[in-house]
Amino acid sequence: MALGKDYATQECSIARALEVVGERWTLLVVRDALYGVRRYNDFLVHLGIPRAVLATRLQMLTEEGILEKRRYQESPPRDEYVVTDRGIALWPTLRALGLWGREHYDGTVLRSFQHADCGTEIGPYGECSACGLVVPVEDVLMLPGPGLDPDPANPVSRALLKPKRLLQPVVVDQV
Amino acid sequence: MALGKDYATQECSIARALEVVGERWTLLVVRDALYGVRRYNDFLVHLGIPRAVLATRLQMLTEEGILEKRRYQESPPRDEYVVTDRGIALWPTLRALGLWGREHYDGTVLRSFQHADCGTEIGPYGECSACGLVVPVEDVLMLPGPGLDPDPANPVSRALLKPKRLLQPVVVDQV
Repeated sequence: MALGKDYATQECSIARALEVVGERWTLLVVRDALYGVRRYNDFLVHLGIPRAVLATRLQMLTEEGILEKRRYQESPPRDEYVVTDRGIALWPTLRALGLWGREHYDGTVLRSFQHADCGTEIGPYGECSACGLVVPVEDVLMLPGPGLDPDPANPVSRALLKPKRLLQPVVVDQV
Repeated sequence: MALGKDYATQECSIARALEVVGERWTLLVVRDALYGVRRYNDFLVHLGIPRAVLATRLQMLTEEGILEKRRYQESPPRDEYVVTDRGIALWPTLRALGLWGREHYDGTVLRSFQHADCGTEIGPYGECSACGLVVPVEDVLMLPGPGLDPDPANPVSRALLKPKRLLQPVVVDQV
């Protein structure tokens, strides 16, 4: 059954959001961008996504102003994709989804997200209970949890094992 | 291009959640269930969704324990679908998505969600900033916003114009 991506009859901001980010893979591309993945090949390796789908998603996310294309090398020309403020604003959605998946399905912590300043686990509404504030995304420290069992052959997964702040570019060992 | 619904290589609670609720229409069915829609025909009318898709989504959501099927009439037998605690736990995700869609696309308030006790607009993670707590879903009051222009011929849309608490069954005028 062919299904479009629009929800023409729905007067609803949730439906509007899903028209933009509701397609398969889209939110995982945004997730990776928040984790600091920027390069086409790193998205490809980390997501295990078909090339054509990744190219379509990156183009759409760029057109929507959720990612921004930046030239990082001139010869040969190479671009990377950096998450914008509009993309960063999807963090509460991804955090809420992840907490739901953890509690109702995984039952274990795959990744821990802490307030970098004090090491407190971020709460269900993005807050640091110790400091009493909603933690800005750039101050969120991501660490592997006890339930994470990443593929050792995947260089992006390996790179994401090191504690790192969200948005900071991930450093992938070149093989 | 045929795309499955699984993300086999992703060790990630966000990906796990999207395997369950990431397909087209699924989150809008859950949204309606949180708004108090319970009956097959009311979902059908409000969503304008193909019958086969709605039936598949309701069955899947029931199997996943996100909705619960309840007999409300014996002769002829009729069931309704009531959102469970697991489904209610998706509210922060839907709230965050809706705020993102409002801020970055609609630019106007289609529906307002307030803490029923104090009238404060619920924040991006479902919290009340005035009371400093995550508002239980049953204490969220839904009201039409100034940007809402619902189809007057749609009885479910009409019924959802009245201020109501989430989860309370929507009362649709029989035509």
